[in-house]
Amino acid sequence: MQSGDQSPNINRRTVVAGLALLPALSEALRSMPAVAQTASDASLASWNDGPAKQAILDFVRATTEQGNPKFVAPEDRIATFDQDGTLWVEHPIYSQVVYCLDRVPAVVEKDPKLKNVEPFKTVLSGNREAIARLSLPDLEKILVATLTGMSVDDFEAEAKKWLTTAKDHRWKRLHTDLIYQPMLEAMQYLRANGFKTYIVTGGGQDFVRVYSWQVYGIPPEQVVGTAGGTKFGYHKDGKPFLTKEPRLLLNDDKAGKPEGIHLMIGRRPYAAFGNSDGDRQMLEYTGAGDGARLMMLVLHDDAKREYAYGPASGLPDTKVGRFTQALYDEAKKKNWTVISMKNDWKRIFKFEQNT
Amino acid sequence: MQSGDQSPNINRRTVVAGLALLPALSEALRSMPAVAQTASDASLASWNDGPAKQAILDFVRATTEQGNPKFVAPEDRIATFDQDGTLWVEHPIYSQVVYCLDRVPAVVEKDPKLKNVEPFKTVLSGNREAIARLSLPDLEKILVATLTGMSVDDFEAEAKKWLTTAKDHRWKRLHTDLIYQPMLEAMQYLRANGFKTYIVTGGGQDFVRVYSWQVYGIPPEQVVGTAGGTKFGYHKDGKPFLTKEPRLLLNDDKAGKPEGIHLMIGRRPYAAFGNSDGDRQMLEYTGAGDGARLMMLVLHDDAKREYAYGPASGLPDTKVGRFTQALYDEAKKKNWTVISMKNDWKRIFKFEQNT
Repeated sequence: MQSGDQSPNINRRTVVAGLALLPALSEALRSMPAVAQTASDASLASWNDGPAKQAILDFVRATTEQGNPKFVAPEDRIATFDQDGTLWVEHPIYSQVVYCLDRVPAVVEKDPKLKNVEPFKTVLSGNREAIARLSLPDLEKILVATLTGMSVDDFEAEAKKWLTTAKDHRWKRLHTDLIYQPMLEAMQYLRANGFKTYIVTGGGQDFVRVYSWQVYGIPPEQVVGTAGGTKFGYHKDGKPFLTKEPRLLLNDDKAGKPEGIHLMIGRRPYAAFGNSDGDRQMLEYTGAGDGARLMMLVLHDDAKREYAYGPASGLPDTKVGRFTQALYDEAKKKNWTVISMKNDWKRIFKFEQNT
Repeated sequence: MQSGDQSPNINRRTVVAGLALLPALSEALRSMPAVAQTASDASLASWNDGPAKQAILDFVRATTEQGNPKFVAPEDRIATFDQDGTLWVEHPIYSQVVYCLDRVPAVVEKDPKLKNVEPFKTVLSGNREAIARLSLPDLEKILVATLTGMSVDDFEAEAKKWLTTAKDHRWKRLHTDLIYQPMLEAMQYLRANGFKTYIVTGGGQDFVRVYSWQVYGIPPEQVVGTAGGTKFGYHKDGKPFLTKEPRLLLNDDKAGKPEGIHLMIGRRPYAAFGNSDGDRQMLEYTGAGDGARLMMLVLHDDAKREYAYGPASGLPDTKVGRFTQALYDEAKKKNWTVISMKNDWKRIFKFEQNT
């Protein structure tokens, strides 16, 4: 478990007691070295020295240094992170889509007449090429069948079970092991400097909330994602429960990201991290604020250690997580920072040895 | 400004530095008295001794005491508060509706043809009896005209201006002065014990977020309310902005309250406070969880110091904030606590002298 806003590794009551004592302690604390500042470089241990790492350090210094004209009040320090391709691997296919495909047999078992109905028939065939060719409407049918219709509690239990057992095909590891270590460090560094970190993902809000605390140190309420409605009802014994409905409330992608940020957070972030055209509007919205703002985009240019795709910078084109040349040009024009996975990251995953 | 989750009165960087030093300090802290525990009774200074005050003290002790079978992990401590009638005065009419009526002249000035169109014509007449007789569809037209169609920033500026100038008719004070002091103390006491406090209101999410931090010490992202969609767009100079749309995403009342809690918080509260039938499902949902749960309802039985309405307990019936006998009976059956404003609250408002 990562240390987070809620300090999962620290006994909260101790902290609360500590806060209550702060008036007495603050004098002593003031005379001690400013830990967060001096520890900054070590906090980004998996980043190579270079413009990306420097952009993070400069932003944090400007926004947290008392007397700096770009100082930001602690309660306004909000940082948002896209997930797929920004915090964890999204190729060859989004992890949540793998989850949905893996859930199809269970759905068919509950409703056997689906066995011979498309697209379920194709998914059950296990023919990966045919599955990869499924149309968007077919994919949506699978998402609806596997992500809605059950209680919120049942969904959480199913997703949790999958997340602790299913392995990806390339690394043979849990999907939650495929988190980018440098981004974890950036999150932790921002939090250590008073920023409240949010995930703002096109993925399912309920899905990401299942593991966000354990994996990122981000509590469920700080995950903004694509969200459907729920319906309140009662079991026969009178106990209330919520059912997940196939009614889209927020499509948290592209323009939906700033819209989702307004709905769920209610104010403009000071820092935003993304990796694809789906993040453009979130970065534009963040950059439109006054003072210091940090906008960063991860470029997947490391075929050896992870994947290489663009099509920006002449990298291979892709359907999953496109980073177009137009986005690249906009980033350059607006002084957003493009993170080269190959050059800026010393290591990609926690499980790797540092080179 | 109240002290809140984000500790507005404490320099956050000092706190962060303090947290970083905690491993070294924790030994010293452990040997000091548990401040939060011993300060408990004084924290609820505006509450009379009695079952309501005791219910709060018992709940906090059970959920925060190490080794108690009902101990709740700090990161799971969520408490939700209805606003209208629970945190501030809702009679004779919701403050936000007054805001909308007050905004009508400005709307008509911008669009003069509305001058002779109902319901705007009636509102402009100033005839309070006729205004009070407006139908629900007419009222909705006024809400749409005054709460949507403008940018998020313009709305915030307009609401802020009104909140710092408009006075209520009975006390001749700002609406934000009409906050119940005992509930502020309950919120602060819960926060001092590690609870994250949320407002869950049928009122407009964007409206309440304008003043929640200054008035309650609750940041915008911890306000869940009735919410409409926004639309991302660009000014002519390319600068992005969000426009408030008349598209309802969440009707945060009755069953919409637990649905909104799931959407915005993602987990079940341990404590929930309300005052009317609109809060029933929120309290049911909270009470359906395991372990210690605190469910409380404010009964307005104090015509002298505030208002008296039910119709529960033979109090006068009302259209605004109905507390029915059925809700009262359910509360008694399920061991929810009914707070008698008259008997349980030593004082109602901060501006009053303690008796």
